This record gives sequence, C-alpha cells and structure tokens, in this order.
Amino acid sequence: MEAGKPNVAFAGLGAMGFGMATNLLKCGYQVTGYDVYQPTLDRFIAEGGKSASTPSKAAEDAEFFICMVVNAEQAGNVLFEKYTGACLTLPKEATILICSTVAPADIDVFHKKLERTGRTYLRLIDCPVSGGAARAADGLLSIFAAGKEADLVHANQILECMSSKLYKIPGGLGGGSKAKLIHQIFAGVNIAMASEAMGLAAAAGLNTQEAFDYLKYSDGNSWMFSNRVPHMLDPSLPPYSAINIIAKDVGIITSTARDWKFALPMLSMAEQLYTTAISAGWGKEDDCVMTRLYLPNRPDLVTEQVKSSKTSETPQLQFHDIKFLLIGVHVAVISEAMTFCEKLGIDTDIMFDIVSNAAGSSAMFSLMFKDMQKENWSLGALHSTDLVRYQLSESVRKANAIRYPVFLSSAALQEFYRQLSTFVNTARIG
Amino acid sequence: MEAGKPNVAFAGLGAMGFGMATNLLKCGYQVTGYDVYQPTLDRFIAEGGKSASTPSKAAEDAEFFICMVVNAEQAGNVLFEKYTGACLTLPKEATILICSTVAPADIDVFHKKLERTGRTYLRLIDCPVSGGAARAADGLLSIFAAGKEADLVHANQILECMSSKLYKIPGGLGGGSKAKLIHQIFAGVNIAMASEAMGLAAAAGLNTQEAFDYLKYSDGNSWMFSNRVPHMLDPSLPPYSAINIIAKDVGIITSTARDWKFALPMLSMAEQLYTTAISAGWGKEDDCVMTRLYLPNRPDLVTEQVKSSKTSETPQLQFHDIKFLLIGVHVAVISEAMTFCEKLGIDTDIMFDIVSNAAGSSAMFSLMFKDMQKENWSLGALHSTDLVRYQLSESVRKANAIRYPVFLSSAALQEFYRQLSTFVNTARIG
Repeated sequence: MEAGKPNVAFAGLGAMGFGMATNLLKCGYQVTGYDVYQPTLDRFIAEGGKSASTPSKAAEDAEFFICMVVNAEQAGNVLFEKYTGACLTLPKEATILICSTVAPADIDVFHKKLERTGRTYLRLIDCPVSGGAARAADGLLSIFAAGKEADLVHANQILECMSSKLYKIPGGLGGGSKAKLIHQIFAGVNIAMASEAMGLAAAAGLNTQEAFDYLKYSDGNSWMFSNRVPHMLDPSLPPYSAINIIAKDVGIITSTARDWKFALPMLSMAEQLYTTAISAGWGKEDDCVMTRLYLPNRPDLVTEQVKSSKTSETPQLQFHDIKFLLIGVHVAVISEAMTFCEKLGIDTDIMFDIVSNAAGSSAMFSLMFKDMQKENWSLGALHSTDLVRYQLSESVRKANAIRYPVFLSSAALQEFYRQLSTFVNTARIG
Repeated sequence: MEAGKPNVAFAGLGAMGFGMATNLLKCGYQVTGYDVYQPTLDRFIAEGGKSASTPSKAAEDAEFFICMVVNAEQAGNVLFEKYTGACLTLPKEATILICSTVAPADIDVFHKKLERTGRTYLRLIDCPVSGGAARAADGLLSIFAAGKEADLVHANQILECMSSKLYKIPGGLGGGSKAKLIHQIFAGVNIAMASEAMGLAAAAGLNTQEAFDYLKYSDGNSWMFSNRVPHMLDPSLPPYSAINIIAKDVGIITSTARDWKFALPMLSMAEQLYTTAISAGWGKEDDCVMTRLYLPNRPDLVTEQVKSSKTSETPQLQFHDIKFLLIGVHVAVISEAMTFCEKLGIDTDIMFDIVSNAAGSSAMFSLMFKDMQKENWSLGALHSTDLVRYQLSESVRKANAIRYPVFLSSAALQEFYRQLSTFVNTARIG
C-alpha cells in the first residue's frame, strides 16, 4: 500500500473481479474484498488483500466501493441490504463504481434509491468493463464510464489503473451501461454467427480448418469469429466463455429494448438460439458448442471435418458463399445496433472507437461504418449494401438448398429487404 | 363416360392427383392418367380410367390437360420434354391446367415457352388447389384459378367438378399461384406456431391436453392449431401431413419474395425451423414433430404431459400466456401476408374470403382483418394491436425466463416494435 492511495472495497471476486481486485493491489491500493465464497477470500488474502464478511464491513473507511457482482439483483443487495448493505457504512464523498453489466434502468434505480434514502453524499459511477479475466488481472480492460463529470475526474486514477482503454461516455449516469449493451449486440450476434458459418462449412462437406483459414483473412472475419472458431476446430482447448455468459448480456439488452419498444430482430434471433442451447443443458459449456444447434444429427461435424479432403469447394457451396453470409450478418447488425445507439442517445463516433477496438469488431464494421453513418444506418441506401444483399440472398438460397438452417443470415436478409423498400436507388444490383 | 363430356388427360397421380382424377371419372369425364409409378396407373385403370406411358400419349385428343405433379421442374418436363411432352400432341384450343403449387414466375415461364414454340393455340390456366387428399377425392377442393376470362369460362365445368370453392382471381395468369402462396404464408407460420405453443405448455409442466382444450376455444386458435395438436397429443394417430410438404410450399414463397426483394421475417423464421427439422432427418414425418425442435432434450414431452397434474397454471406460466403468443403471431402474420398480397397485386377482399374458409384461418384473422385492412396492415396503428403487442411481450419474457425458445413469437414481437416506431398513438398501452 502506497501512502496517499485511497482505500478500496471490492464486492464480487469472481473470475473477472478477482483479477481486477488483485490488479488494484498491484497499483498500490489497499483493497478489502467481499465475496460469498470463502475460499476466494482466502486466496485474495494470500495475494495481499484484506477481506470482510459483509459489504457494509468492507465499505467502512473505503473511498471507492467497486461492485463487480454477477447481476443487478446482487448489486442491489450488496449496496442496499437492510443490515449489511455497503451504503450503511460508506463515508461521505465515497464513490460507488458499478462495474457489473446491468441495464441502464438498473443504474437509474440505484441512483433514485440513493436519493430516496438521503445518501446524496455518495457519488455513483456507471462503468461496465469488457475484456475477459486475463486482461482484468493485467489492468488492460476497456471501461465505459459515465456519471457526473466531477465524479469521473475524482475516480480517474482508479479507473485508469484497471483499464488500458477508458471511454468517458457523455450524457450522465446510464451511458456506460448503454455503451456496453450496444457493444454486446455485436458480440451476441457475432458469437452465434461464427457457429452458423462454420456449421455450414461442415454441412457442405468442406474442410473446416481450411474454411477457417480462408474466412479469417476475408471480409467475413470478425473478432469473435477469429476468437471462437479455433475452439470449434479443437475441442481440447480450455473453455473460453460459457453460453450462459453471453446469454445473460443478451437478455439484458433485449429486455432494455422491450422497455424502449425497439426492434432488435438479429439479436432476438440470437437470443432464441442461446435459449435453445441452454434448454438443451449446454449453458455452462463453451459458446462454440452452438454449432450443435445447426447440426442436430452430427453435433461434432465441425471438428470431424478438420481433415476433410474437400478443401475449397463443392458443387453446392464454396468458401466465399460462407463469407457472404458473414458479411451480410455483420453489416445488418451495424444497422441494428447503431440505430439503437442513436435511440439511446449515445454518441455514435464514440461507439465507433469502442467497437473498433473491442470484441464486437469485424472487417465490415471497419469498412462500412462511416458510409452507413452518413445514410442513417440504412441497409437500402448504398451501392455497397446492395451488393452485400444480393450475395447474401444467393448464399441463403444455397444453404437452404442443402437443408442447412441459416437463422441469423435469413433474419439479416429480411432486414435488407425491409429497408430496401424504403429507398429507390437508380443503380440497384440483383 | 357421358356423351359430350370432353376428354381429360391427367399427369401426376399422387395422393392428391389420384383423388382428383378419380373424382373426374365420377363426374363422367374420360380421363387418361400419366404417372411414373406403374402400380398407381394400374390402380387408376381399376377405377375406370385409362393410362398412357408418356404425357404426349395421354394428351392425344385431350381437351383438358391437368398437371398435378410435385413441382415446377416436373411440370415443365411433363409439358415440354423433347420427345414426350404433352404440348407435342395437345390439339388446338386444348386447355392446360397447372394445379401443382408453383411460383408465379414459373407460370410466366410456361406461358412464354408456349408463345416461343408457336403454341399460342393452347389455353393455359393457373389453378393451384388446397384441401388435402380426402377433399380432392370428393371434389371438395378450394381452387384458385387465373387466366384469360374466356379460358376460365371454357374450363368452368371441370373446375367446378373438382372444387366446392372456386375462386377466380382477377389480373390474369399467375394470380392463382400468388393467391395460393399468400394463403400458404398463414399455413406455414401457423403449423410451426402450433408446435411452439404446445411445446411451451409442456416445458412449463402444464397438462397439455387441458392446454389444448383451453386454447382451441380461445382467440389463440387457428385452423392449423386445432388440426395439428391432436397429433402431438396422440402420436398413434395416422400421419397427417409431412414436414417436407409444407417446407416445399414455404420454399416457393420465400424464393418468390426474394425475387420481389420483399421481407417475410415470420415465414423466413418458420422456414429455418423446417430446414432444421429436415436436416435432422424428420422430413417425412408428420409436421407435428416440430415440437422436438423446441424440446431438444425431452422430445416427447408434449405427449407425456397429457397426464400432468398441473391443470391450469404454474407460478411461471398460465394458459393465457400461451394464448397471447398465438394471438401475437397470428396477428403479425396477417400484416406480413397481406402486405405481400398487395405487393403482388392480389385483391385483399378475395384473399379474405379464401383464407377465412381455408387452412390458413385463425380466430384473430376473422377478428382483426377488416380493421387492419383500413390501417394498411400496420401493427402500430390500432389500440387492439397495442394490447396484443403488450401481452405478447410479457409472454415472450415469461417463456424465455423458463429457458424456452419462442422463435416465432419473438420474431412477431420485433415486427410489432418496428411498426410501432412509425406511428405515434395517443392512447399507447404498455
């Protein structure tokens, strides 16, 4: 502990939280951890931290209270529970940092509850994170922070310690959660789409390793595609991220969209796929097992076809047909996510920076974002999106002809058609 | 054979075609059948018909040539094949009746081919049918007939013999196929929706027999729901209609919509579900086995739960929640199908008559059609659709909360939200 560094309380020492809290120790903060699981607290003490048996005990004398529990319900309990909530003991001017991914509406609830209980002497920052456990432990997270300007300045040092990319989202409390949700629209669609694409390669009898090698260097690539497919090809790799994890975020987004009465057809499609996988009992498995949904009778086909002799094409389907599906879905999700971004009042240029540097990125995102921004995110206004639509429609047709279901690609194609009907373009393709 | 009744040639003596052809015999026509399957021809001779070894031989001296083969490719062969096509021998003024379900574009191809080969001396009628094999054998089909007015008058007697409901669709050739396709949008969505609804009843632990008894007398009922669910509850019933059959029609519709660059999100969702089922190897099974898609780990649950003790509700879900999903989907498909109907230039009032009396009907179709027609099929313009949307959103939330995927209901909800954003209504609900 360095002289002058403020005391920090940290609730929720899970995979991400433990890394974040130990990284704070490395930065020289004195950190008191709270978690329901005693072995984790013991491990945290071994790393040089302190522990407390309740949030209120951890919060005593803390200048910052970081909340990294699993959901909004737990965050509410940690902060406000009658005899043990952190708010009971947090000193004046202390700052609560909500790092858990919660709905913007939850941030609003927390803020109102502070006001209603006369605790306006506490500061509140809405600052969800992104990046995974390894980056958490190294202080290399992306953080989307929102709140009062003075509070953000006050918390700057601790936010900087945890992050390599710190985005301050204008517009006050809730902006951090909104930015995180918009980013997760890309993540939620692209993870499932990686399975849809690779399942198709397998169903067509193609060599899935070579398909991946082709696609990851193509315009069909996404961060998630490059990241997840190796796990499909080699299931002996250690699990990366469970279906339950992305499904949780997706559920927060669709629930927020329902509050706004806003249509998210692509993400809602992905949500039903995740729900099917979870109801099949795969919730705790690596999300790359979503391929099984697409290959009900041959669940391991993507792995088996790593050694297929059909290296580049079959009469029915070629590598580039799969690329066209990925491109179409990645473009359609730009339209969906960024229209919602504007609806939520989040600056789209900041969102460009966030997604470009994070797990929601894709080749098409970099290529198309700026042109689509000028056209209000329409899928029917550009010559380039006409071409994307035409190639998508051909590939959907080919996939269905070999009886392979393309849930997301088909949903994307419907979006192109719908938006097309609102535009008349002189140089229509296809 | 009665004196004065014209000779008829009939190609395609499948389940439907055989009934239609024998019914024509009953009406007093001399009918010469053609089929690739000899035992069927033998059976047709036993019924009093004649047989021919090629379409061209069947067509000699025929005043009417009825084509009831399985798809457009076969119809093209039967009519135009180089040495055996019916057009080689059909006499002047003879009428070709295309009763197979084909795309409007196929009718156009046939018409152009007649012109290009100098066979404008033949008449062409586009007259797909609906009603199933039993009604075919009794001359009780619905027929959607289009063509030149004089040709329709000329063929009136034979069309009347085959049908109990004969709709003449204005606008010339292709109108019959268009009307059939629009009807099948309702059929294609409602068949899959019956499985989505009953799977949810089972997943919630409800008594599925009692759920059915409640729902079939509710506003959530559809012709398909009442017709298909008994097969889900009692798999010992003889198969009704295979997944391949509805999937074939759905494929024709989505392919036609692609030609028109028109979005059919609900039907496209259903198409991906049928495709998944077919790729799982269930194509030849009764379409009621679509419930398995929704219950991947408990494929027989709908049948098993016939005797569940939970008769009317669980804490998570009640019968009326399932009703709200059915209502939402049935209303959304009205908007989708009827917007496409207008795009294709088919009179919507005729379509109301057709669907009301056929397998695409539903309680909501009868209730909402006329009001929605006045609002250009918008899902965002009526107070009643606001209520439907609100109840749908609550039920989607409840279904996903118990980890049950609601593909069609979720797609429907997205449609409500999308169309809502184009309207501002003073008395918004929910």
